[in-house]
Order: sequence, then C-alpha cells, then structure tokens
Amino acid sequence: MIIAIKRGAGAAEVEAFSALLEKRGVGVHLSRGTGQTVLGLVGDTTAIDAETLLAHHLVEKVIRVQEPYKRANRLFHPDDTRIEVEVPGGFRRVGGGCLGVMAGPCSVENRDQIVAVARAVKEAGAGFLRGGAFKPRTSPYSFQGLGPEGLDLLVEAKKETGLPIVTELMDIHHLELFEDVDIIQVGARNMQNFTLLRELGRGGKPVLLKRGYASTITELLMAAEYVMSGGNSRIILCERGIRSFDPYTRNTLDLSAVPALKRQSHLPVIVDPSHATGLAWMVPAMAKAALAAGADGLIIEVHNNPEAALCDGEQSITPEVFASLMGTLRKIAAIEGKTIEGKTL
Amino acid sequence: MIIAIKRGAGAAEVEAFSALLEKRGVGVHLSRGTGQTVLGLVGDTTAIDAETLLAHHLVEKVIRVQEPYKRANRLFHPDDTRIEVEVPGGFRRVGGGCLGVMAGPCSVENRDQIVAVARAVKEAGAGFLRGGAFKPRTSPYSFQGLGPEGLDLLVEAKKETGLPIVTELMDIHHLELFEDVDIIQVGARNMQNFTLLRELGRGGKPVLLKRGYASTITELLMAAEYVMSGGNSRIILCERGIRSFDPYTRNTLDLSAVPALKRQSHLPVIVDPSHATGLAWMVPAMAKAALAAGADGLIIEVHNNPEAALCDGEQSITPEVFASLMGTLRKIAAIEGKTIEGKTL
Amino acid sequence: MIIAIKRGAGAAEVEAFSALLEKRGVGVHLSRGTGQTVLGLVGDTTAIDAETLLAHHLVEKVIRVQEPYKRANRLFHPDDTRIEVEVPGGFRRVGGGCLGVMAGPCSVENRDQIVAVARAVKEAGAGFLRGGAFKPRTSPYSFQGLGPEGLDLLVEAKKETGLPIVTELMDIHHLELFEDVDIIQVGARNMQNFTLLRELGRGGKPVLLKRGYASTITELLMAAEYVMSGGNSRIILCERGIRSFDPYTRNTLDLSAVPALKRQSHLPVIVDPSHATGLAWMVPAMAKAALAAGADGLIIEVHNNPEAALCDGEQSITPEVFASLMGTLRKIAAIEGKTIEGKTL
Amino acid sequence: MIIAIKRGAGAAEVEAFSALLEKRGVGVHLSRGTGQTVLGLVGDTTAIDAETLLAHHLVEKVIRVQEPYKRANRLFHPDDTRIEVEVPGGFRRVGGGCLGVMAGPCSVENRDQIVAVARAVKEAGAGFLRGGAFKPRTSPYSFQGLGPEGLDLLVEAKKETGLPIVTELMDIHHLELFEDVDIIQVGARNMQNFTLLRELGRGGKPVLLKRGYASTITELLMAAEYVMSGGNSRIILCERGIRSFDPYTRNTLDLSAVPALKRQSHLPVIVDPSHATGLAWMVPAMAKAALAAGADGLIIEVHNNPEAALCDGEQSITPEVFASLMGTLRKIAAIEGKTIEGKTL
Repeated sequence: MIIAIKRGAGAAEVEAFSALLEKRGVGVHLSRGTGQTVLGLVGDTTAIDAETLLAHHLVEKVIRVQEPYKRANRLFHPDDTRIEVEVPGGFRRVGGGCLGVMAGPCSVENRDQIVAVARAVKEAGAGFLRGGAFKPRTSPYSFQGLGPEGLDLLVEAKKETGLPIVTELMDIHHLELFEDVDIIQVGARNMQNFTLLRELGRGGKPVLLKRGYASTITELLMAAEYVMSGGNSRIILCERGIRSFDPYTRNTLDLSAVPALKRQSHLPVIVDPSHATGLAWMVPAMAKAALAAGADGLIIEVHNNPEAALCDGEQSITPEVFASLMGTLRKIAAIEGKTIEGKTL
Repeated sequence: MIIAIKRGAGAAEVEAFSALLEKRGVGVHLSRGTGQTVLGLVGDTTAIDAETLLAHHLVEKVIRVQEPYKRANRLFHPDDTRIEVEVPGGFRRVGGGCLGVMAGPCSVENRDQIVAVARAVKEAGAGFLRGGAFKPRTSPYSFQGLGPEGLDLLVEAKKETGLPIVTELMDIHHLELFEDVDIIQVGARNMQNFTLLRELGRGGKPVLLKRGYASTITELLMAAEYVMSGGNSRIILCERGIRSFDPYTRNTLDLSAVPALKRQSHLPVIVDPSHATGLAWMVPAMAKAALAAGADGLIIEVHNNPEAALCDGEQSITPEVFASLMGTLRKIAAIEGKTIEGKTL
Repeated sequence: MIIAIKRGAGAAEVEAFSALLEKRGVGVHLSRGTGQTVLGLVGDTTAIDAETLLAHHLVEKVIRVQEPYKRANRLFHPDDTRIEVEVPGGFRRVGGGCLGVMAGPCSVENRDQIVAVARAVKEAGAGFLRGGAFKPRTSPYSFQGLGPEGLDLLVEAKKETGLPIVTELMDIHHLELFEDVDIIQVGARNMQNFTLLRELGRGGKPVLLKRGYASTITELLMAAEYVMSGGNSRIILCERGIRSFDPYTRNTLDLSAVPALKRQSHLPVIVDPSHATGLAWMVPAMAKAALAAGADGLIIEVHNNPEAALCDGEQSITPEVFASLMGTLRKIAAIEGKTIEGKTL
Repeated sequence: MIIAIKRGAGAAEVEAFSALLEKRGVGVHLSRGTGQTVLGLVGDTTAIDAETLLAHHLVEKVIRVQEPYKRANRLFHPDDTRIEVEVPGGFRRVGGGCLGVMAGPCSVENRDQIVAVARAVKEAGAGFLRGGAFKPRTSPYSFQGLGPEGLDLLVEAKKETGLPIVTELMDIHHLELFEDVDIIQVGARNMQNFTLLRELGRGGKPVLLKRGYASTITELLMAAEYVMSGGNSRIILCERGIRSFDPYTRNTLDLSAVPALKRQSHLPVIVDPSHATGLAWMVPAMAKAALAAGADGLIIEVHNNPEAALCDGEQSITPEVFASLMGTLRKIAAIEGKTIEGKTL
C-alpha cells in the first residue's frame, strides 16, 4: 500500500503518522522527494482500510498494490482449485480443466417435473442438476418456491439420476435441511450477507457464490474470502450479469469477469447465462461465449414446459435446445483442451 | 396490466390464453384491432409476474399500469404516514411535515465516545442518535463493530440524553438484543434479504429501510411491501446513494429518489449524505439539498475525532460542523413549512 | 504522479525507465524500499498518460496526485470565475455569488410562442432565455428544430425582452449564424466532440458545457480544458443527469457533481433539472435542491402549452409553476447569501 | 404503439385526443374496458415520439410495439447484409457467414511501424488493416494522431500489403482526405454526432459505427438509421464496451449486444475487445468469446512494440500473440460454419 502525503505536511507529523501505522503491524518506508512525500507500507496490509486512512488530514491519496484478499488470491495459490463432488462410482469435478454444466428448472414444481428435467439434462450430458426450492422473489405476492418439500423432490431426482444437486440457501437456519445437497448456492442478493457467508465458512460443503448484480470483481472475491476465512475453500464463483442502463437484457452478462476472476484467483468460475439475459433465445449464444472466454462451467435453466413455468419461464430453454447446445459446447471445450464432466455420449 | 399479443396469433389460442389468465383471478378485456390485439387485465394484478407472462409464445410485450405494491402505494393511502417514537415527555416524529435528523458515529467505539457524540448532536438539535454496533464490512479482516456491547453503550447514551436510537440489525436472530432500540435499520446490502424483511414485518418496531445501491425505486417499495405484508407499516425509507461509473464520490446520491418515493408512497423518506458521498466536506451541501428536495429527514455521521474513527472517518463531520449545518437546515425547513424535531434552540 | 514498480524488477531497468520518463520533461524521484520500488514524478505531468505507462512491463500501478487539467483547476485559480454577458444597461452574471436562471422552451416553435414564453419567464425573474433551434434527436424522423429560422426568432425574443439568449450549437460550421447568441450551448452528446470544443476555444463567446450523460467529473473538466486550452475561459459547466439503471427518471440527476465541480474548478456550475428528470412535476423539487447544493444557476424548460410542445413537453413546466418556483428559489439563494440575477421584483 | 389512458378520462376528450393522433398519419383503435381505456396506434409510428405523448394529461403509459427504426430493422429485411470491399483480385466481405478481422495499431506512428504491423497481421490472416490518424483523446495535451500524414501512411501500407484500411473520421470536413480509405470508422464518442451521421449517409463508403459507451442497443440502431435514412446502408455495427461501476476493465464488454443486434437488425456486428477491456492479456479470451457469441468479426489492436506505443499500448497485443489467437479463432469460426476472410494459410 502506498500513501501519498499532502503537500506542506511537516516532517514531525508525518513521522508521528508513520509510527501510528507501524503500530498496526506493517512496516513503513518513508520517501521524501522534492515534490511529494510517499509512505510505502510493507507486510500484511489486508486489515488496513484504505478509506479509513483517507480520513487522516495528512493523506492525499492511497493506492493498494496488494489485493485485500489472501486466501482467494492466486498470488499465494498459483494452481487452479478443483471442486470435487462425490457421485456414484467417482467424482464430478469443476475447475482445473474440468467443466461443470449445471442444468435444471428455476423452481422445483412437482415430482414429475423435476425428475423429467433431471433425466433429460443428464441424457444431454449435464453434470449437475440445479433447481430452486427457496426462491428470492422481488414481490412478497409471487410464488416463493416449495421450500422443504422442494428440497425433498430434488433429492428424489438425485436418487433417480445420480446427478449431484445445486440449490439456493437463503436462510442459514435452514442449513440442516441441506444435508443431501451437494453444492449450496448463495444468490446474487445475498453475496454480501456476511452472516450467511461466515456460517458457510464453518461448514465443508461446496458453495456456489453468485456475484451480486452491482458488485465488483474485488467485492466478489472479498465475499469468497469471508467463506474461506472460516476454513471452507470449496467455492465456485459465478458471473450472472450486472446492472446496466440498457433494458434490452435483464442484466448485462459481464464475460470479462471470467478472465479477470481467473487471473486474480485460483477458484473455478462458472457463468449463468439464463439469469443474466432473461431471454431463452439468447442463452445458447452466451453459453458458448462463456466457455470460449475460459469459464469452468455453466449453470443453465432448462424446463420441459417453459410457458407453464411458475417462475422465469422466459429464460428457460427446452431439453431439446439444451441437448443441441451441449453438442456445440463440447466442441468449444475441446478447442481449449478441456472436458465437460457428465455422461459420456 | 396490458398485454400486447404477437401478430398472427389465432383467435382461438388468444381466447385460451385469456381463459388461463382469468383463472388467476383477474378480469381480461380483449381488444382486437386491425393491427394489434391487446389484452387489458383488470383487478388485483400484483400477484401476476410480468416476466413470467413474457415466456408465453403469444406475448409480445407487457405493460404494467398498476404498480406491483399495494400497502406502500400512495394511491390507496393518500395521506403521509408519520412514524412516531416515544421520548421522555412525548413523541419524536418523522414524516408529515416533521423532519427527523439522526446523527452519530458510524461505529460505537466506547462509552466516552458515544455519550460525547450523543450530547453534542442533541445540543445541536438532532432528534435521534445513530450508531453502529453490528457493522457490515466488505473485508472479513476489518473491524466488525462491538456487537452486543455496542448496543449496551447505545442504550446508555440514550439514557444519558433521552435521544431515541437507530442502529442496524444484520441477523434476525439478534432481534431480542434490540428491545431498547427505537428504530431498526436494515442496511443497503440487506434490502433484499427477504428472510430479514419478513421477520421485521411480524414485529412492531419502526424500520429504517435503506435503498440497495443498485436497487430501483420500485424494488425499494417492494422491499417495504415485504415488511408491510407482515403487518408492520412503521417504515422509513432511506436514499443512500447508488452505484454509478464515476469514482469521485463513493456512490451517487440520487436525490430524485426523494420526490419519486414521496409521489409513489405515503411512507416518509430520509437521506444519508454520509454513506452516499463518502466525503465529509460534501455532507453539508448534500444534506441541504436533500431537505430542499423534500426529504423528511437525514441520517448523518458525526464523530468527535474523525481521524481516529475505527471506520468511515473520511465521511464523518465534526460536532461543530454539524451544529452549523443544523442552523441552515432549520432555515430550509422553514421555507417548506416544516419543523426539525429535536431540542428547541 | 506516483508509479509503483513490479516486484523483482532489476535496478538497471528501473533506472533506464526513469531516464525515459525524464526525457518527457518531468523530474523522477526513485525510492526503493524493502518491499516496493516507487517512482515519484514531479513537474507538469498533464501530458503524461497514465494508461500508456501501464503498458510498460515494469509498471504495477499508477496513481495521479495532480489532476490532469490545469486551466480549469481551482488549485491554480482559487477565485470563482464569473461569466458576464452584456444586457441593456449593464451585465448579467453567473458565478461568484450571482445565480443565473435560464428558462424557455425546449424548441423554438414560432414567433408567438417564443416571445410569449420569453415575456413570461422574464416577468418571473429569469435572467436568460433558453430555446433550441438545432435539436439533437435520437430519431432521424423526429422534429429537428427550426434551424436558422429558430435562431432568428430567438433574436427577436431577445429584442422584445432584453433577455440574453442561450442556444445549442451542433455543427461548428453554423458558428457564423450564432453572432447574436449570448451563450453557446454544447449539448451532452457533444461534450467529447473535440473538434467542436477546439473551435469554440478559439472564439470569445461564453460556452455552456453540458456534462455527457456517461461522463465523469474529470472528463467534464477535461472537456472544459479543451476549450480553455484554445484561450477561451468563459465556460459555464452544467450537470444534466447521468445514466443509471433506474428507469423512473430519464436520467439520474447527480447533484453531488455541484460541490465536486466547484471544489475542483473555479468555473460556475449550473443544473438542468428538466432534461435530467424528464418529468415536469419533479422539476421544482430538483431545482430547489440544486441551489441548496450550491449551484450557480439553473436551466429550466418552460412552455406555455406543454401538451402541444413539439418536443420534450413532458418535462416542461408552465409559466405559472415557474413563477411560483422562482419565489422559493430566491429564498434559498438568500440563505446562501446569493442573488438571482434578473428582473427585480 | 399502445397508449394507456388515465383513469377517469372523459369519452369526449379521449376522442379528441384520438383525432389529434390520426392527424399525424396513424390509425387509432380505441378500446374501452371496464378498468382501462387503451388506444392502439397502427401504421408507421416511427415519427411519433413516445416521450412527447407522455406530456399529454390523458396519457398514463406508452408502450412501443414496433421498433422506432425501419431501414436497420431485420423485420423488413430478413436476410443478413454483407458489406463488401474491393481488394486486388476480388472482394473482402463482412457479414452473412464471412468474418472480418481488422487489426493494427491504435495510432499510425511512422512508415516503418505501420508497414511492419500491416505485414504481420496480413501474414497472420487479418482481412483489414486498422490504424488511427485522427485520435479522439480525453486530454488536449495528449498525442492527437498524425492527422493527414497518418492517412497517407495508411494508404502506403495498403499499397504494400493489399489490405483494405479502416480508420476514424472525427470531422466531416476531413471527408475528402478519406478517398482511399475503405471503411470509415465513427468512434464511440461520435455515435450521436448527428451532423456527422447525416453526411456519411449521403456518401457510399462503408461505415464502421461504434456503439457509444453509454448507448443502448436501440440508440445504436437509431444512429445507424440516421446514416441509412440518407441512403447509405453499408454499415458495420461495433460493440466496444459500455460504462459500468467496476474499474477492473476500462469498460465492460457487452457481448449480449451481439445476439441482440443480430436479432433486431440485418447489419453485421463486430466486436472490439481491445478498447473494451483496455488490457492486452484479456484480449484473446474476449475475442474468442465474441466469435462464439456470433459476431461477424473483430477489430483488434496489434502493435509491434506495445511498450513504446504513443497511445493505448496497454491494450495492444503483439503480432505473435495475434497470430496464435487467429489459429484458435479459425477453429471457433469453423464450429459455426463461418470463414474468416483473409490470407488463406
């Protein structure tokens, strides 16, 4: 961290300020030029808050050279992290050359629906079944998901197909209901629900952490750091669109987040083209683009009857479209020397 | 709600679609013009999700005429709601011509600090004491607030000064600790923590609901609707800055949200210039502008020693600046025929 | 400007890089700490492009301490600039305690309309008449303004009322038509039309420079710098709303730009609440807030028959609303010890 | 276009309003339901401004069913437009299955540089040479390009290599200098320079129209419509990043614009990953993603010595990286059944 001191600051007060900083456990290297005095902080500066420093009357600007995250930082963990989930006869993996494709309906609606979709996406080559039991909805009057019953139905679909399941946790006090869930999703609106993140850090289940729709790359990695600081490093990051000024798509899928996150962090990064665009017809194009950009996987909404879906039907593709898409995705994966984990066709 | 039907749709399938909609409890008025077929939905359309309708192959566009919120809607509740909090010898009020000014430090740090600030802001005419005990921080390595001890110190400051207190709740399971708190703050990051909102709806304490930094006016009102749908209508809305592309200020204070929210809703609306700008020197200008725009109050960070603050010092003003500001704010209030509730000077 | 050098850089190559920088006319102060090598650049760094430096393999980060603008910078010109325009019997001024209120229709439509509106706004106390002759319209099929005839009608209205006129120039080759125009407006879409800015810098007429709807504070000041670098310092800056994610208002009026611009620059700053909000009913609230935030004036759309306006009627207020608003604006100005220039009532 | 009428409007005034609309050349179909009166406008509504309608006291909401652009609209021109440029021995094409890759330096610096880069990118398979002679720079003190001399050098490089050239026009009065230029680029900052667009519409040269960094899909298509309304339909649209809140990349590359533009319009769409990200290391990932998303081509900055570039070096890739990238791009093109136009390897 580098601190530019305001012009005209006296030597004594700058030294007193340096001493104050050293008490916080960092080394301070003072450099006084003709036009500018600069303090260089060395050591672990993650606990030093740049904004707080700016309150000091001597401080002109602060520049962070070291990132504020440690455990999520590729600098200290150069190899890709691979998340592994047990499946009958082995493991399903995401990261480090293994692509995870998670597919299924926005909401679990009933047994027939979830089992039918699970079979269809497995057949097409998906590696994981996604489906919502607890749904965060903007309106209190909208369908909020089946709740615990939805979880039970997901587990039944898992038994039927062998597909590991991914579903969203909205309230940490539901955690015990999630025992048979393979990957716990933290939704975009909860990315900075620090209470939730801390608790998930104490457990050992993989966490699918979605980027908030107005969160920066750094904030997403700091959210991961909350989980990791509790001891749980099994995290999959997920880009799902950010808010912009153009209403054409629901959100703006920020695919540059993929190479950005993979450069900054060793954690796997997947993409959700369904929620990002909100438009079923656009999902295949953006799914292909995500893999070409280097994503470690995808999470895609597939519904056997999108028109009758209880939520988000406008962004769900049919099993037929999904199967066709998977064919192209395998070709793109092959170009990059990667493999989509799932049923071998 | 008006639904534009795609060109070329057959009469029979449009009628089948109408029948489907009527089953959801709304009336459907079908209008078939030469160039365009339109369905007009009448009745309570709040439970009908426009995005879900868009999944239907007959639907071209959907336009909501009625807002999706009911209890928060000024249409059904034309008079201003006024939130009242008991103080020794009477009530302190926000809304309906009564301006509430809430002032205090970002974080409660120790007894001396919070009592000193409380006395100073009371003296200057603040009506409420604000201070954080549980702090949502981007980094797990930053100071997270004193927690329960911070709440105790706030209550002590309340006893010393008579000022009602406002502080943030981050975890609904801390609710029992908030018994002596007068107004419970829901922070911007939790504006769509629907679990938290629902629970607060079951209680009776006033809720200060901050707008998420990437939330629309409608989403903020839908968050209020979550609380209100549980039976608690004692809500104060708070504009605290939205994310934009310009790094000059931390966020962009959206003062147009004040007249917008007051037109759409009967709930009182206050403004937080401190978090919005992140710059202490800018707080007075934006505080004055907020009242001139019609706000029902302000929440302002005041610290007796901003340079030594454990968080957000760069946005805290001193008690002296606050006292001077209050003088000008009273003049602006007078122009609008409103009164700042607090110590009469 | 401070340059943080990447770890592991050799001493020889850092010195070679320093020498390269010195050739560009700045002094370089090298500071090598245990953990971080830093170069401090002193002298005039305005011509050094931070982004270009980042291409060098030795450079980790670049921090600008000095702003990239000089002539627009308050640091080198501490006193407020006041723009003066000749009127019968004296001058009308904007800046330095004098508030300029510019009012009139979006477009000049015909002689009766522009003269009637001019009289009405003069009567209410406006200091300047605004009106569009050349209109930048998103659609090539929309009304594009009356062109030269519109300018003639504005000049007639000026003769009738004595009000100086403000109108937009879209093409530098129209400049000769603007001889009788008092203030030339550069619209938001042309804020970075560098060809136009350079040419206006060669003239001597005051320029009303509107902030682009996605331009930062720094970019607006750099646009002013383009004009000023040609020798013309008679610039009025104008905040007119930025793009955000919320469709409630057309743009988001960024009133924090007012104190920001006034801190960074000596140029006067006015606000356009009409284009920012696009909603006539919201204009009075935002106009009041703008003055309370410290603006040096306002530019407001007033139309004698908004419903029949050929453009932007939904954001025009009537002369009656304007007159009532002026009464309140005078009171807010008085609180700040400022005067609205115009007809004394 | 559908107009929702406010509740309580009288039958007579609604009919008067309908008559007013019919005078503007559209048919009006009035539908009066129990709860809502709706007007459906049929015919050519492109000249009717939705915002102007909102000023009318009877109007509650306006919904556009038909897009406001005609000539750019795929609805009226279902087949892909293919832009053809003459080259020695034939044509180089963009659109309709032919991918155009334009590569070269940000700025033309000298003869050796531009010829060397032109040869290198031709060798790697680029179809067009890009390079800036007139540069729009944020600062008046930055290098502004070589101007006419830069154009001459580009033409020399064209003669040496046979590559058609693409370069930016900033001032319509330079048009005569562009005779030997094959494709005229309109930069993002000039996307709504309507004067420039109109003039280019009168000529016959292909126009590369870059999306403004805060422009919507619709606004970009309306800018194309300006050119097309003058008679010139040879337009290539270009996505080059939009402004968002995250400073990690210079802008946010919006790849969903590719399928969006191709659905709405028949014009070819290319992507500029260099300006969007501002980061050379990120360019290959985003270039691959752009083709996978369905783009008709790319425009990429390539410099033989990025560290010494006079502008934008941090986003330029070397000829070696470009050649390697082209190999992968050909594979992605093949998956989609498309061909990159250029030297056959």
